[in-house]
Amino acid sequence: MKEVNGVNGVNGVHVDVGELLSRMTLREKVGQLNQRLFGWDCVARRRGGFELTDAFHAEVERWGGLGALYGLFRADAWSGRSWKDGIRPEERAEVAALVTDAVRSGSRHGVPPLVVEEAPHGHQALGSTLFPVNLNAGASWDPGLLAECARAVAAELRAGGVHLALVSALDLLRDPRWGRAEECFGEDPLLAAELTRALVEGMQGVGRSALATGGVGVVLKHFAAQGEGVGGRNGQSAVLGPRDLHELHLPAAEAGTRAGAVGVMAAYNDIDGVPCCANPELLTGLLRDAWGFDGLVMADGKAVDRLAAMTGSLREAARTALLAGVDLSLWDEAYTLLEEAAEDDPRTAEAIDRACGAVLRVKSVLGLLEADPVRPAVERVHPEAAPVRTAAELSGRLARRSLVLLENRTRTLPLALDAVREIAVIGPNAASATALLGDYVPPLLPEAERSVLDAVRDRLGDRVRVRHVPDDGREFEAATASADLVLAVLGGTSHRHYGDGFADNGAALRTRATCGEGVDLADLRLPGGQDALLRRARAATGAPLVAVVVAGRPHVLTEVLALADATLWAGYPGPYGADAVLDVLLGEAEPEGRLPMTLPADPGAVPVRYNDRRPADGVYVDAPRPVLRAFGYGQGYRTSRVTGLLAHAGEGSAAADRIVVTVELENESARPLPEVVQVYAHRTGGPAWPRVRELVAFRRVVLPPGTVTPVTFALTAERLFSGTREGRHGCTTLFAGELDVRINHHPWDTYDDTV
Amino acid sequence: MKEVNGVNGVNGVHVDVGELLSRMTLREKVGQLNQRLFGWDCVARRRGGFELTDAFHAEVERWGGLGALYGLFRADAWSGRSWKDGIRPEERAEVAALVTDAVRSGSRHGVPPLVVEEAPHGHQALGSTLFPVNLNAGASWDPGLLAECARAVAAELRAGGVHLALVSALDLLRDPRWGRAEECFGEDPLLAAELTRALVEGMQGVGRSALATGGVGVVLKHFAAQGEGVGGRNGQSAVLGPRDLHELHLPAAEAGTRAGAVGVMAAYNDIDGVPCCANPELLTGLLRDAWGFDGLVMADGKAVDRLAAMTGSLREAARTALLAGVDLSLWDEAYTLLEEAAEDDPRTAEAIDRACGAVLRVKSVLGLLEADPVRPAVERVHPEAAPVRTAAELSGRLARRSLVLLENRTRTLPLALDAVREIAVIGPNAASATALLGDYVPPLLPEAERSVLDAVRDRLGDRVRVRHVPDDGREFEAATASADLVLAVLGGTSHRHYGDGFADNGAALRTRATCGEGVDLADLRLPGGQDALLRRARAATGAPLVAVVVAGRPHVLTEVLALADATLWAGYPGPYGADAVLDVLLGEAEPEGRLPMTLPADPGAVPVRYNDRRPADGVYVDAPRPVLRAFGYGQGYRTSRVTGLLAHAGEGSAAADRIVVTVELENESARPLPEVVQVYAHRTGGPAWPRVRELVAFRRVVLPPGTVTPVTFALTAERLFSGTREGRHGCTTLFAGELDVRINHHPWDTYDDTV
Repeated sequence: MKEVNGVNGVNGVHVDVGELLSRMTLREKVGQLNQRLFGWDCVARRRGGFELTDAFHAEVERWGGLGALYGLFRADAWSGRSWKDGIRPEERAEVAALVTDAVRSGSRHGVPPLVVEEAPHGHQALGSTLFPVNLNAGASWDPGLLAECARAVAAELRAGGVHLALVSALDLLRDPRWGRAEECFGEDPLLAAELTRALVEGMQGVGRSALATGGVGVVLKHFAAQGEGVGGRNGQSAVLGPRDLHELHLPAAEAGTRAGAVGVMAAYNDIDGVPCCANPELLTGLLRDAWGFDGLVMADGKAVDRLAAMTGSLREAARTALLAGVDLSLWDEAYTLLEEAAEDDPRTAEAIDRACGAVLRVKSVLGLLEADPVRPAVERVHPEAAPVRTAAELSGRLARRSLVLLENRTRTLPLALDAVREIAVIGPNAASATALLGDYVPPLLPEAERSVLDAVRDRLGDRVRVRHVPDDGREFEAATASADLVLAVLGGTSHRHYGDGFADNGAALRTRATCGEGVDLADLRLPGGQDALLRRARAATGAPLVAVVVAGRPHVLTEVLALADATLWAGYPGPYGADAVLDVLLGEAEPEGRLPMTLPADPGAVPVRYNDRRPADGVYVDAPRPVLRAFGYGQGYRTSRVTGLLAHAGEGSAAADRIVVTVELENESARPLPEVVQVYAHRTGGPAWPRVRELVAFRRVVLPPGTVTPVTFALTAERLFSGTREGRHGCTTLFAGELDVRINHHPWDTYDDTV
Repeated sequence: MKEVNGVNGVNGVHVDVGELLSRMTLREKVGQLNQRLFGWDCVARRRGGFELTDAFHAEVERWGGLGALYGLFRADAWSGRSWKDGIRPEERAEVAALVTDAVRSGSRHGVPPLVVEEAPHGHQALGSTLFPVNLNAGASWDPGLLAECARAVAAELRAGGVHLALVSALDLLRDPRWGRAEECFGEDPLLAAELTRALVEGMQGVGRSALATGGVGVVLKHFAAQGEGVGGRNGQSAVLGPRDLHELHLPAAEAGTRAGAVGVMAAYNDIDGVPCCANPELLTGLLRDAWGFDGLVMADGKAVDRLAAMTGSLREAARTALLAGVDLSLWDEAYTLLEEAAEDDPRTAEAIDRACGAVLRVKSVLGLLEADPVRPAVERVHPEAAPVRTAAELSGRLARRSLVLLENRTRTLPLALDAVREIAVIGPNAASATALLGDYVPPLLPEAERSVLDAVRDRLGDRVRVRHVPDDGREFEAATASADLVLAVLGGTSHRHYGDGFADNGAALRTRATCGEGVDLADLRLPGGQDALLRRARAATGAPLVAVVVAGRPHVLTEVLALADATLWAGYPGPYGADAVLDVLLGEAEPEGRLPMTLPADPGAVPVRYNDRRPADGVYVDAPRPVLRAFGYGQGYRTSRVTGLLAHAGEGSAAADRIVVTVELENESARPLPEVVQVYAHRTGGPAWPRVRELVAFRRVVLPPGTVTPVTFALTAERLFSGTREGRHGCTTLFAGELDVRINHHPWDTYDDTV
């Protein structure tokens, strides 16, 4: 896909995109840039089979084809599709073929549509395998496992005839009030970059190698800086400057596009005033010119129409987005006006060719433009695609690896059940299976729903009495007091009910949810008086009180950590999360997760990020310690210790630009121990105020017992040192565990530190 | 002062700064750039007179002179100086002369020091006239009155031998958690710019005309964007981009420097990473090159030393600050190292000349370099300088004009006292005189202290029983219940006790204050359970309950407004504020103030600003209406109504760039009515997302009764329209009162609004 005119050799069939483009009318080209339909409205179940709707046919006829179709299989409260009327897994290939054939037939050139689906953590369609949300993936610090999960998701998607997956990856959790916190890999740019790369390589194969076989193309969401929205307000202004933008928000996007992602979604927010969909410096100057991105840029849903509030008209909105670099619109009316806009404006016409070329090239690289035979993509699924059972296992594994032990006083965990006769399970999430799932998920079949309470009953019910105590029941105090162990399943939920209200882009408007898109919170304490509930429980009993916090966003857990003997952060661990929690509570698995974000101690003292330039400690007179648990934090049942930290210049001619950092760790237990090695830097000497800490390297390892294990990282000077200027040389202090080591930029002896 | 080599004609004496510079040694020049001493430590009271301390003499001897001396007269908890041992008003001229003569004598060139004092709202020295804080000045919307107040402050300063006043003006209140909120003119760039201009012209005279007579030079604090500190954290990173920086934070600085301010103080914070003291684009490229600023740039206290955490050494910190454009340091050790830094670095030596030239030029323009006769500046005080009594009257007038009526149900105010026999005065600020003053103030003499309770007793005590009810007394409920009227004096305080702890730059470290420098708050509810106190009062009585909120920062007053029948925001109205409050409560003055900032409704839903690009309404699911009272809000006892809003092109050849806006107002009462006319714009058509609203014009007027008064503004297209590009033309909707009018940029008929 490097060539501008798109000679592509997938499956041995060469497709000349430039030649195809030259045969297309303006209207046909504009048709490739539109993605107006809600896919779930395009197919109706009739007479034991499926029929395409009139609206679908009209759209294909209007444009002589179709650029892309969004959400054909989407099933959720917004689409209204459920197990009652939605498309079942076994029907997807048939429906995809029906749609694809119809579009090909309606196109003079036999060009099929891109079938585009939401798949932020599993396909948002009936019966798909769901995975933990991104924030949990962040907590795993395990790009390798995430790549495996992504591969499994891609296989399911492609088996159902899907070509493009919309996947959140680029957003950073910069303000805990933002409802989409769960969609972030956390607050750190390096962690997000490594996980984004893994995601792309998992879905598309390394170097896009799987795209024409079992993989799907990835559209990375959202470009850029959406996590910086002022006050955590969804899609609002990202108030930040170019340096922070580049240091914080762009590394994941660059990693993902350099790994070959075929698509990027331009975000709703503006950056310093300029909406991402109208930002040529971002979408063209940086993405295409500087990074060499050759895929397509999709606008977020209705984002181009919204631009009319800035430009004064839909037509001017479309032109602004197109010229900035948006190729494919989503649900907008505006992009239909490009045809008329191009008539008297050669620049617009030229940009339409560019955009259409980008869309066609992605189709080409996905093998969709092959001339003969015309077959739905579904039949070319890679034979080695992972079966669904494996996907479920991967989902459970990622869930287990993402659980973070925040507190464990007097070794309350793992649970010692010998003397326990009765467990009281309390808290609003105890009996909820849906709360474990996160946003952007389909409804589960009842038999697939499994709450923490279900898992406790199944796995412990034969040994102890398990009693579910409703929060508001009169017997709460008595029931809690009579138990030998109280398990409080707290937190929030992104679950959407079919009766909820939605904005025109599917964001929640009226909902009981406390998280997810459109659910920003002003008050970060656990919702619904859960602190008070826990106080009641604590007052009622001296028995061990264990809290499990199911919440894909940082909440203020100051009281929870003070009241409970042990607290486990579970994020939204997915449909297999309940058993993952039990595995850890029972000691069948080590708590391996590490926080991918800072946990705030006080609802008013936000945002606090570990990599801010100045510490927030001691600043607020009424909240002098605003960090409850730091980024990277997580206790284990057993522990390792950093016993050495060394840095030396790499060997060979590139020595000055390559530093080898070795962290030596000792497993203090008698069995192999998983650990996440984290190396941080404090970098001075550049023109900007140094950040307190920056993660510069990490790796999940399993330490053998009884020996010191060296873990080695080869790091570039660019990552380790601040930009230098005018003969001044930077100095960086590295931190791992309790150790630190100071290194100077080459030449090593010139750093002036006579403070 | 336009000429680089400083030929200055003050008082007919020409001083050639360039020539003087050529005669100075490197050490003498570096001495001019240092301002290391705490002035209050330089003079000791002995044998009925004053003596200079050894430390002072040593410093003068070290440098062969002295660039500037900070805080000679400062009296407050940090300096430790009080009425017991501080310099009294009548002694200031003598002390100033002593210092000045000593420095002149120690200088081979007879160059005196700049005597520099804090005067953010009156001179921070014993017995000076104090004024309401800047936030109150903002609430007055009255640049003319502020200019008069500034003139009075300058007269007092110059009478005491002071040359430079450090005055907060440039900071915007962008996050209510910031303790220095009181030092801001509010959140709006235009309001801040107009008040900054007034301040400079008041202190220095228009076009610096008063500098050599009754005026003092102004050093405007802080440059730049300090109000943007992340999370309201004092002096921390201003996370914002160049567009917001220019649109929001620079207008006041540009207005102040174009009005001739002789100094600007570089702020502590960084902007997008780069500390202001190390920012050549800001201090040189913008300030000097673009705006033509010819004065001196002073660093904030110890700000250069702090740079060592970035640069690695004090010496490199000094060099970085100097090359960026800092001329005069404050309390730093670093700038003493410039001498050695210049020895092997011609660029540093050259920059020292530039900086020294800037300091000397300011001395020249202040008339301090006159060769003969050598006299302390004090003797040249302008004969028309306002006497102290007038200053007090001005302070009271500004206080009165700044009070904002936030709520007044069933016309509770003005108070009808006919049936009132007993008034209960409650609340933590009832008996406090110091709470009225704000930060950066000297101690008052006991006889000058006057609380709201004092004023109530004085002015109503002969008619009604006035009972002060302590908040924690057992009789609170009973006493409140027995009164016919309850007056609750709520809020916070910036008062520093002599036992408080301070950082090395005077910011509060350990304090009971709830506002001021170093007192950032995470929780914006009224401190100390005042909402609960008011609930108790409300439960105890059905009598009218009036709340006066003494607080120079936005607090969340949602409960106060719901519980009290009437609520008056008083900010920190100064020593004459208690009577101003009484004037308004009793109806002797109209409540004329209008909010210069947004009052938040919810402590977690911050920041919200009226000029954000997207409204915060409906965003947070748990705080759907986060604005309690909007910017510009304020009720009157009587009202006016906007009856017309017209906009038309100005006449003559510049018509296209000059729009005349006329607001017609009707005074609905029978007497003259003061009103603040406010014109807002919503500007579309530029490359950036439009702000919800922007203030584009305002004026305080007094409307005659019984007629419609037209108020006319001639506005530039630059202010009214967004930047245009590529043949597109902006469209702006203007708002005044309930009316709006839409105007298109010239040519008027081309704006495409076919949305």
